[in-house]
Amino acid sequence: MTQLVEKRQHQIIETLSALNGTEAIKDAWKREGGGGGITGILPSGRVFENGGVNSSIVYGKCSRQLLDAMGLAEEDLSSLHFFATGISLILHPHNPMVPTVHANYRYFEITREGCPIHWWFGGGSDLTPSYLFEEDAQHFHLSLKEACDKTDTALYPKLKKECDDYFYLPHRKEHRGIGGIFALKQQDRPLEQHFSWASTCSDAFLPSYLPIVERCKNMPFSEHEKRWQLLRRGRYVEFNLMYDLGTTFGLRSGGRTESILVSLPPTVSWEYDFQPKKGSREEEMLSVLKHPREWAPLLI
Amino acid sequence: MTQLVEKRQHQIIETLSALNGTEAIKDAWKREGGGGGITGILPSGRVFENGGVNSSIVYGKCSRQLLDAMGLAEEDLSSLHFFATGISLILHPHNPMVPTVHANYRYFEITREGCPIHWWFGGGSDLTPSYLFEEDAQHFHLSLKEACDKTDTALYPKLKKECDDYFYLPHRKEHRGIGGIFALKQQDRPLEQHFSWASTCSDAFLPSYLPIVERCKNMPFSEHEKRWQLLRRGRYVEFNLMYDLGTTFGLRSGGRTESILVSLPPTVSWEYDFQPKKGSREEEMLSVLKHPREWAPLLI
Repeated sequence: MTQLVEKRQHQIIETLSALNGTEAIKDAWKREGGGGGITGILPSGRVFENGGVNSSIVYGKCSRQLLDAMGLAEEDLSSLHFFATGISLILHPHNPMVPTVHANYRYFEITREGCPIHWWFGGGSDLTPSYLFEEDAQHFHLSLKEACDKTDTALYPKLKKECDDYFYLPHRKEHRGIGGIFALKQQDRPLEQHFSWASTCSDAFLPSYLPIVERCKNMPFSEHEKRWQLLRRGRYVEFNLMYDLGTTFGLRSGGRTESILVSLPPTVSWEYDFQPKKGSREEEMLSVLKHPREWAPLLI
Repeated sequence: MTQLVEKRQHQIIETLSALNGTEAIKDAWKREGGGGGITGILPSGRVFENGGVNSSIVYGKCSRQLLDAMGLAEEDLSSLHFFATGISLILHPHNPMVPTVHANYRYFEITREGCPIHWWFGGGSDLTPSYLFEEDAQHFHLSLKEACDKTDTALYPKLKKECDDYFYLPHRKEHRGIGGIFALKQQDRPLEQHFSWASTCSDAFLPSYLPIVERCKNMPFSEHEKRWQLLRRGRYVEFNLMYDLGTTFGLRSGGRTESILVSLPPTVSWEYDFQPKKGSREEEMLSVLKHPREWAPLLI
Protein backbone atom coordinates (compact mmCIF):
# COMPACT_ATOMS: atom_id res chain seq x y z
CA MET A 1 0.00 0.00 0.00
CA THR A 2 2.83 2.44 0.76
CA GLN A 3 4.24 1.72 -2.70
CA LEU A 4 0.85 2.27 -4.29
CA VAL A 5 0.40 5.58 -2.43
CA GLU A 6 3.80 6.84 -3.55
CA LYS A 7 3.31 5.71 -7.15
CA ARG A 8 -0.15 7.27 -7.47
CA GLN A 9 0.95 10.54 -5.89
CA HIS A 10 3.87 10.81 -8.32
CA GLN A 11 1.76 9.89 -11.36
CA ILE A 12 -1.13 12.22 -10.49
CA ILE A 13 1.08 15.19 -9.61
CA GLU A 14 3.05 14.82 -12.85
CA THR A 15 -0.08 14.68 -15.00
CA LEU A 16 -1.88 17.54 -13.27
CA SER A 17 1.20 19.79 -13.22
CA ALA A 18 1.54 19.42 -16.98
CA LEU A 19 -2.16 20.17 -17.46
CA ASN A 20 -2.03 23.17 -15.14
CA GLY A 21 1.26 24.53 -16.46
CA THR A 22 2.60 24.94 -12.93
CA GLU A 23 5.28 23.09 -11.02
CA ALA A 24 3.93 21.36 -7.90
CA ILE A 25 5.47 22.28 -4.57
CA LYS A 26 6.33 19.19 -2.55
CA ASP A 27 6.48 19.83 1.16
CA ALA A 28 7.85 16.87 3.14
CA TRP A 29 6.97 16.74 6.84
CA LYS A 30 7.79 14.41 9.70
CA ARG A 31 5.39 13.30 12.41
CA GLU A 32 6.54 13.39 15.99
CA GLY A 33 6.11 9.82 17.14
CA GLY A 34 6.64 8.16 13.77
CA GLY A 35 6.32 8.65 10.04
CA GLY A 36 5.40 11.67 7.98
CA GLY A 37 4.23 12.63 4.54
CA ILE A 38 4.55 14.72 1.43
CA THR A 39 2.06 17.52 0.88
CA GLY A 40 1.95 18.20 -2.86
CA ILE A 41 0.59 21.64 -3.68
CA LEU A 42 -0.61 22.63 -7.14
CA PRO A 43 -0.37 26.41 -7.35
CA SER A 44 -2.85 28.45 -9.36
CA GLY A 45 -2.39 27.76 -13.08
CA ARG A 46 -4.21 27.33 -16.39
CA VAL A 47 -6.93 25.07 -14.97
CA PHE A 48 -6.79 24.86 -11.19
CA GLU A 49 -7.01 27.67 -8.66
CA ASN A 50 -5.37 25.29 -6.24
CA GLY A 51 -4.96 21.64 -5.54
CA GLY A 52 -3.41 19.30 -3.04
CA VAL A 53 -2.19 15.77 -3.70
CA ASN A 54 -0.97 14.44 -0.35
CA SER A 55 0.57 11.21 0.82
CA SER A 56 1.18 10.08 4.37
CA ILE A 57 2.69 7.09 6.10
CA VAL A 58 2.30 7.42 9.86
CA TYR A 59 2.73 4.96 12.72
CA GLY A 60 3.35 4.87 16.42
CA LYS A 61 1.87 3.92 19.75
CA CYS A 62 -1.92 3.86 20.08
CA SER A 63 -3.52 6.53 22.27
CA ARG A 64 -6.88 6.16 23.99
CA GLN A 65 -8.14 9.09 21.90
CA LEU A 66 -7.25 7.28 18.69
CA LEU A 67 -8.97 4.05 19.75
CA ASP A 68 -12.06 5.97 20.87
CA ALA A 69 -12.23 7.79 17.55
CA MET A 70 -11.95 4.45 15.74
CA GLY A 71 -14.68 2.95 17.92
CA LEU A 72 -12.32 0.27 19.27
CA ALA A 73 -12.62 -0.93 22.85
CA GLU A 74 -9.19 -2.38 23.52
CA GLU A 75 -8.38 -2.22 27.20
CA ASP A 76 -4.63 -2.78 27.28
CA LEU A 77 -2.86 0.03 25.37
CA SER A 78 0.68 -0.99 26.28
CA SER A 79 1.61 -3.16 23.29
CA LEU A 80 -0.70 -1.55 20.71
CA HIS A 81 0.67 0.24 17.66
CA PHE A 82 -1.04 1.76 14.65
CA PHE A 83 0.02 2.13 11.06
CA ALA A 84 -1.80 4.27 8.49
CA THR A 85 -1.06 5.23 4.93
CA GLY A 86 -3.06 6.97 2.28
CA ILE A 87 -3.26 9.30 -0.68
CA SER A 88 -5.65 12.22 -0.49
CA LEU A 89 -6.29 14.75 -3.21
CA ILE A 90 -8.54 17.66 -3.95
CA LEU A 91 -8.69 19.99 -6.94
CA HIS A 92 -10.45 23.37 -7.12
CA PRO A 93 -10.69 24.56 -10.75
CA HIS A 94 -10.96 28.22 -11.78
CA ASN A 95 -13.77 27.69 -14.28
CA PRO A 96 -17.15 27.10 -12.59
CA MET A 97 -18.04 24.67 -15.38
CA VAL A 98 -15.24 22.32 -14.26
CA PRO A 99 -16.18 20.33 -11.16
CA THR A 100 -14.18 20.13 -7.96
CA VAL A 101 -12.98 16.60 -7.32
CA HIS A 102 -11.82 14.70 -4.26
CA ALA A 103 -10.23 11.28 -3.92
CA ASN A 104 -8.73 9.46 -0.98
CA TYR A 105 -7.54 5.87 -0.61
CA ARG A 106 -6.19 4.72 2.75
CA TYR A 107 -5.19 1.71 4.79
CA PHE A 108 -5.27 1.56 8.59
CA GLU A 109 -3.97 -1.16 10.88
CA ILE A 110 -3.61 -1.75 14.61
CA THR A 111 -1.15 -4.35 15.83
CA ARG A 112 -0.61 -6.00 19.18
CA GLU A 113 2.99 -7.12 19.56
CA GLY A 114 3.42 -6.88 15.81
CA CYS A 115 0.30 -8.86 14.83
CA PRO A 116 -2.57 -7.03 13.08
CA ILE A 117 -5.69 -7.21 15.27
CA HIS A 118 -7.71 -4.56 13.38
CA TRP A 119 -7.28 -3.34 9.82
CA TRP A 120 -9.38 -1.75 7.11
CA PHE A 121 -9.28 0.03 3.78
CA GLY A 122 -11.26 3.18 3.24
CA GLY A 123 -11.88 6.17 1.05
CA GLY A 124 -13.18 6.71 -2.44
CA SER A 125 -13.70 9.53 -4.91
CA ASP A 126 -16.47 12.05 -5.43
CA LEU A 127 -17.33 14.91 -7.76
CA THR A 128 -18.66 18.36 -6.80
CA PRO A 129 -19.85 20.34 -9.81
CA SER A 130 -21.30 23.84 -9.60
CA TYR A 131 -23.19 23.16 -12.83
CA LEU A 132 -24.62 19.85 -13.87
CA PHE A 133 -23.48 18.13 -17.06
CA GLU A 134 -25.21 14.79 -17.11
CA GLU A 135 -22.68 13.20 -19.44
CA ASP A 136 -19.87 14.15 -17.03
CA ALA A 137 -21.71 12.73 -14.03
CA GLN A 138 -22.30 9.52 -15.98
CA HIS A 139 -18.71 9.30 -17.13
CA PHE A 140 -17.36 9.83 -13.60
CA HIS A 141 -19.64 7.25 -12.00
CA LEU A 142 -19.19 4.72 -14.78
CA SER A 143 -15.38 4.97 -14.47
CA LEU A 144 -15.63 4.21 -10.76
CA LYS A 145 -18.17 1.45 -11.32
CA GLU A 146 -15.87 -0.26 -13.82
CA ALA A 147 -12.97 0.00 -11.38
CA CYS A 148 -15.05 -1.46 -8.54
CA ASP A 149 -16.45 -4.19 -10.79
CA LYS A 150 -12.93 -5.61 -11.25
CA THR A 151 -13.11 -6.70 -7.60
CA ASP A 152 -16.85 -7.36 -7.29
CA THR A 153 -19.94 -5.99 -9.03
CA ALA A 154 -21.62 -5.74 -5.62
CA LEU A 155 -19.20 -3.01 -4.56
CA TYR A 156 -20.23 -0.01 -6.66
CA PRO A 157 -23.92 0.12 -5.61
CA LYS A 158 -22.92 -0.21 -1.94
CA LEU A 159 -20.17 2.41 -2.07
CA LYS A 160 -22.25 4.77 -4.22
CA LYS A 161 -24.90 4.78 -1.51
CA GLU A 162 -22.36 5.17 1.29
CA CYS A 163 -20.90 8.15 -0.60
CA ASP A 164 -24.30 9.84 -0.93
CA ASP A 165 -24.96 9.22 2.77
CA TYR A 166 -21.56 10.43 3.96
CA PHE A 167 -21.20 13.65 1.95
CA TYR A 168 -24.35 15.21 3.32
CA LEU A 169 -24.94 18.55 5.08
CA PRO A 170 -27.97 18.06 7.36
CA HIS A 171 -28.22 21.80 8.13
CA ARG A 172 -28.57 22.53 4.38
CA LYS A 173 -30.47 19.34 3.50
CA GLU A 174 -28.01 19.09 0.61
CA HIS A 175 -25.43 16.54 -0.46
CA ARG A 176 -21.95 17.95 -1.07
CA GLY A 177 -21.85 16.97 -4.72
CA ILE A 178 -23.09 14.33 -7.15
CA GLY A 179 -21.25 11.59 -5.25
CA GLY A 180 -19.07 8.77 -6.46
CA ILE A 181 -17.89 6.00 -4.15
CA PHE A 182 -16.95 6.06 -0.47
CA ALA A 183 -16.21 3.57 2.29
CA LEU A 184 -15.43 4.53 5.86
CA LYS A 185 -14.13 1.04 6.70
CA GLN A 186 -13.88 -1.99 4.43
CA GLN A 187 -12.84 -5.12 6.26
CA ASP A 188 -15.31 -7.77 5.16
CA ARG A 189 -13.19 -9.46 2.47
CA PRO A 190 -9.71 -10.92 2.23
CA LEU A 191 -7.16 -8.13 2.57
CA GLU A 192 -5.91 -8.74 -1.00
CA GLN A 193 -9.33 -7.93 -2.45
CA HIS A 194 -9.54 -4.63 -0.63
CA PHE A 195 -6.04 -3.74 -1.74
CA SER A 196 -6.93 -4.61 -5.32
CA TRP A 197 -9.98 -2.33 -5.01
CA ALA A 198 -7.83 0.56 -3.75
CA SER A 199 -5.36 -0.04 -6.55
CA THR A 200 -7.85 -0.18 -9.45
CA CYS A 201 -9.96 2.71 -8.12
CA SER A 202 -6.98 5.01 -7.54
CA ASP A 203 -5.75 4.04 -11.02
CA ALA A 204 -9.14 5.11 -12.37
CA PHE A 205 -8.86 8.59 -10.89
CA LEU A 206 -7.19 10.34 -13.82
CA PRO A 207 -9.35 8.70 -16.54
CA SER A 208 -12.48 9.42 -14.47
CA TYR A 209 -11.73 13.13 -14.20
CA LEU A 210 -9.44 14.36 -17.00
CA PRO A 211 -11.94 13.97 -19.88
CA ILE A 212 -14.37 16.14 -17.90
CA VAL A 213 -11.70 18.81 -17.42
CA GLU A 214 -10.82 18.72 -21.11
CA ARG A 215 -14.45 19.11 -22.14
CA CYS A 216 -15.25 21.98 -19.76
CA LYS A 217 -12.07 23.92 -19.10
CA ASN A 218 -12.46 26.42 -21.93
CA MET A 219 -16.20 26.94 -21.62
CA PRO A 220 -17.14 30.61 -21.27
CA PHE A 221 -18.72 31.66 -17.99
CA SER A 222 -20.36 34.77 -16.56
CA GLU A 223 -19.75 36.73 -13.37
CA HIS A 224 -22.98 35.28 -12.03
CA GLU A 225 -21.77 31.74 -12.66
CA LYS A 226 -18.47 32.49 -10.89
CA ARG A 227 -20.44 33.87 -7.93
CA TRP A 228 -22.48 30.66 -7.76
CA GLN A 229 -19.27 28.61 -7.76
CA LEU A 230 -17.92 30.62 -4.81
CA LEU A 231 -21.18 30.07 -2.90
CA ARG A 232 -21.03 26.34 -3.61
CA ARG A 233 -17.47 26.35 -2.30
CA GLY A 234 -18.89 27.75 0.94
CA ARG A 235 -20.87 24.52 1.28
CA TYR A 236 -17.67 22.58 0.67
CA VAL A 237 -16.04 24.41 3.59
CA GLU A 238 -19.08 23.81 5.79
CA PHE A 239 -18.96 20.09 5.09
CA ASN A 240 -15.23 19.69 5.59
CA LEU A 241 -15.02 21.68 8.83
CA MET A 242 -18.23 20.36 10.39
CA TYR A 243 -18.75 16.80 9.21
CA ASP A 244 -15.74 15.29 7.46
CA LEU A 245 -14.29 12.77 9.89
CA GLY A 246 -10.78 12.93 8.43
CA THR A 247 -10.70 16.72 8.83
CA THR A 248 -12.36 17.02 12.23
CA PHE A 249 -10.55 14.06 13.79
CA GLY A 250 -7.27 15.07 12.15
CA LEU A 251 -7.42 18.62 13.46
CA ARG A 252 -8.56 17.64 16.94
CA SER A 253 -5.95 14.92 17.35
CA GLY A 254 -2.95 17.03 16.45
CA GLY A 255 -2.69 16.18 12.75
CA ARG A 256 -0.77 18.56 10.50
CA THR A 257 -3.19 21.47 10.09
CA GLU A 258 -1.80 22.87 6.82
CA SER A 259 -1.85 19.45 5.12
CA ILE A 260 -5.40 18.73 6.28
CA LEU A 261 -6.80 22.15 5.37
CA VAL A 262 -5.26 22.18 1.92
CA SER A 263 -8.68 20.71 1.03
CA LEU A 264 -10.31 24.12 1.55
CA PRO A 265 -10.97 26.22 -1.55
CA PRO A 266 -8.69 29.23 -2.15
CA THR A 267 -11.55 31.73 -2.53
CA VAL A 268 -15.01 31.31 -1.04
CA SER A 269 -18.17 33.36 -0.52
CA TRP A 270 -21.19 33.35 1.71
CA GLU A 271 -24.35 35.36 1.00
CA TYR A 272 -27.49 35.55 3.08
CA ASP A 273 -30.25 33.29 1.84
CA PHE A 274 -29.22 33.11 -1.82
CA GLN A 275 -32.01 31.43 -3.80
CA PRO A 276 -31.51 30.30 -7.40
CA LYS A 277 -34.09 31.49 -9.91
CA LYS A 278 -36.85 29.11 -10.95
CA GLY A 279 -35.83 27.10 -13.96
CA SER A 280 -32.20 28.24 -13.79
CA ARG A 281 -29.17 25.99 -14.14
CA GLU A 282 -28.36 26.75 -10.50
CA GLU A 283 -31.75 25.39 -9.45
CA GLU A 284 -31.18 22.30 -11.60
CA MET A 285 -27.87 21.68 -9.78
CA LEU A 286 -29.48 22.17 -6.39
CA SER A 287 -32.26 19.71 -7.14
CA VAL A 288 -29.67 16.98 -7.81
CA LEU A 289 -27.83 17.90 -4.59
CA LYS A 290 -31.08 17.49 -2.70
CA HIS A 291 -32.09 14.28 -4.44
CA PRO A 292 -29.11 12.15 -5.54
CA ARG A 293 -29.55 10.26 -8.78
CA GLU A 294 -28.28 6.98 -10.13
CA TRP A 295 -25.70 7.81 -12.78
CA ALA A 296 -23.90 4.64 -13.76
CA PRO A 297 -26.87 2.42 -14.70
CA LEU A 298 -28.08 4.96 -17.27
CA LEU A 299 -25.45 3.80 -19.75
CA ILE A 300 -26.04 0.07 -19.32
CA MET B 1 -34.94 41.12 28.30
CA THR B 2 -37.14 40.80 25.20
CA GLN B 3 -37.67 44.57 25.32
CA LEU B 4 -33.94 45.16 25.66
CA VAL B 5 -33.21 42.85 22.72
CA GLU B 6 -35.72 44.63 20.49
CA LYS B 7 -34.55 48.10 21.52
CA ARG B 8 -30.85 47.34 20.97
CA GLN B 9 -31.50 45.70 17.62
CA HIS B 10 -33.44 48.72 16.41
CA GLN B 11 -30.89 51.23 17.73
CA ILE B 12 -27.84 49.37 16.35
CA ILE B 13 -29.39 48.71 12.94
CA GLU B 14 -30.42 52.38 12.57
CA THR B 15 -26.95 53.65 13.45
CA LEU B 16 -25.04 51.17 11.31
CA SER B 17 -27.34 51.63 8.31
CA ALA B 18 -26.69 55.37 8.37
CA LEU B 19 -22.94 54.81 8.66
CA ASN B 20 -22.94 52.24 5.85
CA GLY B 21 -25.28 54.18 3.57
CA THR B 22 -27.41 51.08 2.99
CA GLU B 23 -30.87 50.15 4.10
CA ALA B 24 -30.93 47.04 6.30
CA ILE B 25 -33.05 44.12 5.16
CA LYS B 26 -35.20 42.79 7.98
CA ASP B 27 -36.19 39.20 7.53
CA ALA B 28 -38.76 38.01 10.08
CA TRP B 29 -39.02 34.25 10.63
CA LYS B 30 -41.15 31.99 12.79
CA ARG B 31 -39.97 28.93 14.66
CA GLU B 32 -42.01 25.76 14.43
CA GLY B 33 -42.85 25.00 18.04
CA GLY B 34 -42.83 28.58 19.30
CA GLY B 35 -41.38 32.01 18.74
CA GLY B 36 -39.18 33.42 15.98
CA GLY B 37 -36.87 36.26 15.23
CA ILE B 38 -35.79 39.07 12.98
CA THR B 39 -32.61 38.62 10.96
CA GLY B 40 -31.29 42.08 10.15
CA ILE B 41 -28.94 42.09 7.18
CA LEU B 42 -26.63 45.00 6.39
CA PRO B 43 -25.83 44.79 2.67
CA SER B 44 -22.45 45.84 1.30
CA GLY B 45 -22.02 49.61 1.67
CA ARG B 46 -19.52 52.37 2.42
CA VAL B 47 -17.97 50.60 5.42
CA PHE B 48 -19.20 47.04 5.77
CA GLU B 49 -18.97 44.21 3.26
CA ASN B 50 -21.78 42.59 5.20
CA GLY B 51 -23.28 42.48 8.63
CA GLY B 52 -26.00 40.76 10.57
CA VAL B 53 -27.86 42.14 13.59
CA ASN B 54 -30.26 39.42 14.69
CA SER B 55 -32.82 39.07 17.41
CA SER B 56 -34.67 35.98 18.51
CA ILE B 57 -37.32 35.05 21.05
CA VAL B 58 -37.91 31.31 21.03
CA TYR B 59 -39.72 29.01 23.40
CA GLY B 60 -41.36 25.61 23.54
CA LYS B 61 -41.14 22.17 25.00
CA CYS B 62 -37.75 20.89 26.14
CA SER B 63 -36.21 18.07 24.15
CA ARG B 64 -33.67 15.58 25.51
CA GLN B 65 -31.16 16.92 22.95
CA LEU B 66 -31.56 20.45 24.28
CA LEU B 67 -31.10 19.40 27.91
CA ASP B 68 -28.04 17.31 26.99
CA ALA B 69 -26.51 20.23 25.12
CA MET B 70 -27.10 22.45 28.15
CA GLY B 71 -25.59 19.84 30.46
CA LEU B 72 -28.83 19.48 32.43
CA ALA B 73 -29.84 16.12 33.86
CA GLU B 74 -33.60 16.55 34.33
CA GLU B 75 -35.33 13.20 34.13
CA ASP B 76 -38.95 14.14 33.61
CA LEU B 77 -39.34 16.06 30.35
CA SER B 78 -43.14 16.22 30.38
CA SER B 79 -43.71 19.59 32.04
CA LEU B 80 -40.43 21.28 31.02
CA HIS B 81 -40.39 24.32 28.77
CA PHE B 82 -37.58 26.59 27.62
CA PHE B 83 -37.48 30.27 26.79
CA ALA B 84 -34.53 31.99 25.13
CA THR B 85 -33.99 35.46 23.81
CA GLY B 86 -30.95 37.28 22.57
CA ILE B 87 -29.35 39.77 20.24
CA SER B 88 -26.44 38.62 18.11
CA LEU B 89 -24.46 40.77 15.73
CA ILE B 90 -21.42 40.54 13.52
CA LEU B 91 -19.86 43.07 11.17
CA HIS B 92 -17.32 42.38 8.43
CA PRO B 93 -15.80 45.66 7.16
CA HIS B 94 -14.32 46.13 3.67
CA ASN B 95 -11.16 47.88 4.83
CA PRO B 96 -8.65 45.47 6.42
CA MET B 97 -7.67 48.22 8.86
CA VAL B 98 -11.17 48.17 10.39
CA PRO B 99 -11.66 45.19 12.72
CA THR B 100 -14.45 42.65 12.51
CA VAL B 101 -16.64 42.79 15.61
CA HIS B 102 -19.05 40.39 17.26
CA ALA B 103 -21.49 40.88 20.12
CA ASN B 104 -24.18 38.68 21.60
CA TYR B 105 -26.29 39.06 24.73
CA ARG B 106 -28.76 36.33 25.63
CA TYR B 107 -31.00 34.99 28.34
CA PHE B 108 -32.03 31.36 28.72
CA GLU B 109 -34.57 29.82 31.05
CA ILE B 110 -36.09 26.42 31.73
CA THR B 111 -39.36 26.20 33.58
CA ARG B 112 -41.23 23.33 35.17
CA GLU B 113 -44.95 24.01 35.28
CA GLY B 114 -44.25 27.69 34.74
CA CYS B 115 -41.58 28.08 37.45
CA PRO B 116 -37.97 28.80 36.39
CA ILE B 117 -35.74 25.95 37.56
CA HIS B 118 -32.67 26.90 35.49
CA TRP B 119 -31.74 30.26 34.03
CA TRP B 120 -28.66 32.15 32.95
CA PHE B 121 -27.38 35.15 31.03
CA GLY B 122 -24.57 34.75 28.54
CA GLY B 123 -22.65 36.35 25.73
CA GLY B 124 -20.32 39.29 25.40
CA SER B 125 -18.45 41.16 22.71
CA ASP B 126 -15.09 40.65 21.04
CA LEU B 127 -12.92 42.31 18.41
CA THR B 128 -11.08 40.62 15.53
CA PRO B 129 -8.65 42.96 13.80
CA SER B 130 -6.46 41.96 10.85
CA TYR B 131 -3.99 44.67 11.86
CA LEU B 132 -3.21 45.70 15.40
CA PHE B 133 -3.83 49.28 16.57
CA GLU B 134 -3.04 49.30 20.26
CA GLU B 135 -5.17 52.37 20.96
CA ASP B 136 -8.19 50.65 19.39
CA ALA B 137 -7.66 47.49 21.41
CA GLN B 138 -7.40 49.60 24.56
CA HIS B 139 -10.49 51.65 23.71
CA PHE B 140 -12.56 48.54 22.99
CA HIS B 141 -11.55 46.75 26.19
CA LEU B 142 -11.85 49.85 28.34
CA SER B 143 -15.39 50.48 27.08
CA LEU B 144 -16.39 46.95 28.05
CA LYS B 145 -14.57 47.18 31.37
CA GLU B 146 -16.44 50.38 32.25
CA ALA B 147 -19.74 48.75 31.33
CA CYS B 148 -18.96 45.67 33.44
CA ASP B 149 -17.75 47.82 36.35
CA LYS B 150 -21.23 49.31 36.69
CA THR B 151 -22.36 45.91 37.97
CA ASP B 152 -19.16 44.74 39.68
CA THR B 153 -15.44 45.46 39.12
CA ALA B 154 -14.79 41.73 39.53
CA LEU B 155 -16.64 40.99 36.28
CA TYR B 156 -14.33 42.38 33.59
CA PRO B 157 -11.18 40.42 34.54
CA LYS B 158 -13.21 37.21 34.79
CA LEU B 159 -15.06 37.69 31.49
CA LYS B 160 -11.94 38.93 29.70
CA LYS B 161 -10.22 35.66 30.56
CA GLU B 162 -13.25 33.57 29.61
CA CYS B 163 -13.32 35.39 26.26
CA ASP B 164 -9.66 34.62 25.56
CA ASP B 165 -10.22 30.99 26.53
CA TYR B 166 -13.40 30.57 24.49
CA PHE B 167 -12.35 32.18 21.20
CA TYR B 168 -9.40 29.87 20.66
CA LEU B 169 -8.51 27.62 17.71
CA PRO B 170 -6.47 24.72 19.13
CA HIS B 171 -5.51 23.44 15.66
CA ARG B 172 -3.95 26.85 14.87
CA LYS B 173 -2.75 27.62 18.38
CA GLU B 174 -4.30 31.06 17.81
CA HIS B 175 -7.04 33.05 19.48
CA ARG B 176 -9.72 34.34 17.12
CA GLY B 177 -9.05 38.00 17.87
CA ILE B 178 -7.91 40.32 20.61
CA GLY B 179 -10.83 39.32 22.82
CA GLY B 180 -13.24 41.38 24.87
CA ILE B 181 -15.67 39.81 27.30
CA PHE B 182 -17.55 36.52 27.17
CA ALA B 183 -19.64 34.37 29.49
CA LEU B 184 -21.10 31.01 28.54
CA LYS B 185 -23.42 30.98 31.57
CA GLN B 186 -23.79 33.60 34.29
CA GLN B 187 -26.08 32.49 37.07
CA ASP B 188 -24.15 33.25 40.27
CA ARG B 189 -25.80 36.58 41.16
CA PRO B 190 -29.32 37.88 41.59
CA LEU B 191 -31.07 37.85 38.21
CA GLU B 192 -31.40 41.67 38.26
CA GLN B 193 -27.61 42.10 38.39
CA HIS B 194 -27.08 39.89 35.35
CA PHE B 195 -29.80 41.73 33.46
CA SER B 196 -28.21 45.04 34.37
CA TRP B 197 -24.88 43.69 33.05
CA ALA B 198 -26.50 42.65 29.75
CA SER B 199 -28.16 46.05 29.51
CA THR B 200 -25.07 48.22 30.15
CA CYS B 201 -22.76 46.04 28.05
CA SER B 202 -25.09 45.96 25.06
CA ASP B 203 -25.51 49.72 25.45
CA ALA B 204 -21.71 50.04 25.31
CA PHE B 205 -21.51 48.25 21.97
CA LEU B 206 -21.80 51.26 19.65
CA PRO B 207 -19.46 53.52 21.70
CA SER B 208 -16.93 50.66 21.99
CA TYR B 209 -16.77 50.14 18.24
CA LEU B 210 -17.82 53.23 16.27
CA PRO B 211 -14.80 55.41 17.20
CA ILE B 212 -12.53 52.63 15.89
CA VAL B 213 -14.47 52.51 12.62
CA GLU B 214 -14.28 56.30 12.25
CA ARG B 215 -10.52 56.31 12.85
CA CYS B 216 -9.71 53.47 10.45
CA LYS B 217 -12.36 53.41 7.73
CA ASN B 218 -10.55 55.71 5.30
CA MET B 219 -7.04 54.40 5.85
CA PRO B 220 -5.34 53.36 2.62
CA PHE B 221 -4.53 49.68 2.22
CA SER B 222 -2.61 47.52 -0.23
CA GLU B 223 -3.57 44.37 -2.13
CA HIS B 224 -1.32 42.44 0.22
CA GLU B 225 -3.19 43.80 3.25
CA LYS B 226 -6.54 42.83 1.71
CA ARG B 227 -5.17 39.34 1.07
CA TRP B 228 -4.14 39.05 4.74
CA GLN B 229 -7.63 40.12 5.82
CA LEU B 230 -9.19 37.37 3.65
CA LEU B 231 -6.86 34.79 5.18
CA ARG B 232 -7.74 35.98 8.69
CA ARG B 233 -11.40 35.61 7.76
CA GLY B 234 -10.61 31.97 6.99
CA ARG B 235 -9.70 31.55 10.66
CA TYR B 236 -13.01 33.18 11.57
CA VAL B 237 -14.85 30.56 9.53
CA GLU B 238 -12.80 27.76 11.06
CA PHE B 239 -13.66 28.93 14.57
CA ASN B 240 -17.35 29.44 13.93
CA LEU B 241 -17.94 26.14 12.13
CA MET B 242 -15.73 24.00 14.37
CA TYR B 243 -15.84 25.44 17.87
CA ASP B 244 -18.52 28.07 18.38
CA LEU B 245 -21.18 26.42 20.52
CA GLY B 246 -23.97 28.70 19.31
CA THR B 247 -23.20 27.86 15.68
CA THR B 248 -22.53 24.14 16.04
CA PHE B 249 -25.40 23.48 18.45
CA GLY B 250 -27.72 25.76 16.48
CA LEU B 251 -27.04 24.01 13.18
CA ARG B 252 -27.21 20.50 14.64
CA SER B 253 -30.44 21.14 16.52
CA GLY B 254 -32.42 22.49 13.61
CA GLY B 255 -31.84 26.22 14.17
CA ARG B 256 -32.41 28.54 11.23
CA THR B 257 -29.31 27.96 9.09
CA GLU B 258 -29.34 31.27 7.21
CA SER B 259 -29.68 33.31 10.43
CA ILE B 260 -26.89 31.40 12.14
CA LEU B 261 -24.48 31.48 9.22
CA VAL B 262 -24.94 35.18 8.58
CA SER B 263 -21.89 35.35 10.89
CA LEU B 264 -19.66 34.01 8.11
CA PRO B 265 -17.68 36.56 6.11
CA PRO B 266 -18.86 37.35 2.58
CA THR B 267 -15.45 36.68 0.96
CA VAL B 268 -12.76 34.43 2.38
CA SER B 269 -9.47 32.85 1.32
CA TRP B 270 -7.28 29.95 2.28
CA GLU B 271 -3.66 29.59 1.20
CA TYR B 272 -1.28 26.77 1.98
CA ASP B 273 1.05 27.53 4.87
CA PHE B 274 1.08 31.33 4.58
CA GLN B 275 3.78 32.73 6.87
CA PRO B 276 4.02 36.46 7.61
CA LYS B 277 7.42 38.07 7.05
CA LYS B 278 9.65 38.66 10.07
CA GLY B 279 9.05 42.07 11.57
CA SER B 280 5.92 42.66 9.46
CA ARG B 281 2.63 44.04 10.76
CA GLU B 282 1.06 40.66 9.99
CA GLU B 283 3.57 38.97 12.28
CA GLU B 284 2.85 41.56 14.99
CA MET B 285 -0.88 40.75 14.75
CA LEU B 286 -0.19 37.02 14.90
CA SER B 287 1.95 37.34 18.00
CA VAL B 288 -0.96 38.97 19.86
CA LEU B 289 -3.31 36.23 18.63
CA LYS B 290 -0.92 33.65 20.02
CA HIS B 291 -0.33 35.47 23.30
CA PRO B 292 -3.34 37.54 24.46
CA ARG B 293 -2.49 40.77 26.24
CA GLU B 294 -4.13 42.80 28.96
CA TRP B 295 -5.58 45.88 27.31
CA ALA B 296 -7.77 47.68 29.79
CA PRO B 297 -5.31 48.13 32.69
CA LEU B 298 -2.86 49.95 30.43
CA LEU B 299 -4.90 53.13 30.66
CA ILE B 300 -5.41 53.08 34.42
